[in-house]
Amino acid sequence: MRILIDMDEVMADAIARFIEWYERDFGIHYTEEQLHGTKLHYIIPEAHRAVVKQYPHQKGFFANLPLIANSQEIIRELNDKHEVYIASAAMEFKYSLGEKYDWLDEHFPFIHWKRRILCGDKSVLKGDVLIDDHDFNLSVFSGRAIMFTATHNVLDTRFERLNNWLEARKLFNIDTP
Amino acid sequence: MRILIDMDEVMADAIARFIEWYERDFGIHYTEEQLHGTKLHYIIPEAHRAVVKQYPHQKGFFANLPLIANSQEIIRELNDKHEVYIASAAMEFKYSLGEKYDWLDEHFPFIHWKRRILCGDKSVLKGDVLIDDHDFNLSVFSGRAIMFTATHNVLDTRFERLNNWLEARKLFNIDTP
Repeated sequence: MRILIDMDEVMADAIARFIEWYERDFGIHYTEEQLHGTKLHYIIPEAHRAVVKQYPHQKGFFANLPLIANSQEIIRELNDKHEVYIASAAMEFKYSLGEKYDWLDEHFPFIHWKRRILCGDKSVLKGDVLIDDHDFNLSVFSGRAIMFTATHNVLDTRFERLNNWLEARKLFNIDTP
Repeated sequence: MRILIDMDEVMADAIARFIEWYERDFGIHYTEEQLHGTKLHYIIPEAHRAVVKQYPHQKGFFANLPLIANSQEIIRELNDKHEVYIASAAMEFKYSLGEKYDWLDEHFPFIHWKRRILCGDKSVLKGDVLIDDHDFNLSVFSGRAIMFTATHNVLDTRFERLNNWLEARKLFNIDTP
């Protein structure tokens, strides 16, 4: 089985970086709980939005992002049993390319470069399963679309769910080690 | 129709860079004619091979590559009529990612970032047509596989051929402007 796995909010916590840079620039700290069912972009003052929108275009935004809980161990287990590809819609953000490359080398060295994809829209990818946090990626995918729970998508009921990585063991019949 | 187009030796002349850097390092100039049916790697002294093999891993190798003849105008015409994606197996070479991004922005700004893919193996891509110079990419592709002629593949008879970009007008029924 070929399983495609998205990066941001599935393997890497990019929301943490938004929160961190927003606090750096505007002195206000949001918690991930405050973003439940929404995005930072929507709850901050309108005057701040242009600045926040530029964050992912800036150098360093995607560097050293924290790991999503249990992503390393479970993706390793999935990779041992299945054909795992990492597929990130990264082409909008120039500096993300090198930073995502380094991040994968550091945290997921067991995923061969042949199985890493930086793309635009995901309709072009062929696989059995896509695990992603974004409805617009899942809805154009031709295989089984599984929504990985992130603060911004908790209210979406249209897709099969993976609420966290530990649940993947059951979903993909991986024996608990 | 969705047409996937490879970059090196199809849009960008990476062989020219190999020849240029080899001359810089070893003082010997090869012509593309001398590479007919082979690769630089195979005809240089064995002692030089490790150096040449490292070239694509080095910063600058993929920067400012010359264009393959007529690629800009014909790919623009194809893009006006079809769903064109650029798909480069770039993930082996870290610095190629940013350099390919810049190169596309400079020479192919009309290809939206959503239609740019930097990947590993191309078996994961879904499309009607793949235009590529490498047999190993073409042979794992599930759609129509078209070999773009490059010095190293001229002796390969297994695939449909595109010998140059001007031929693509006829192949894809584009009216000559």
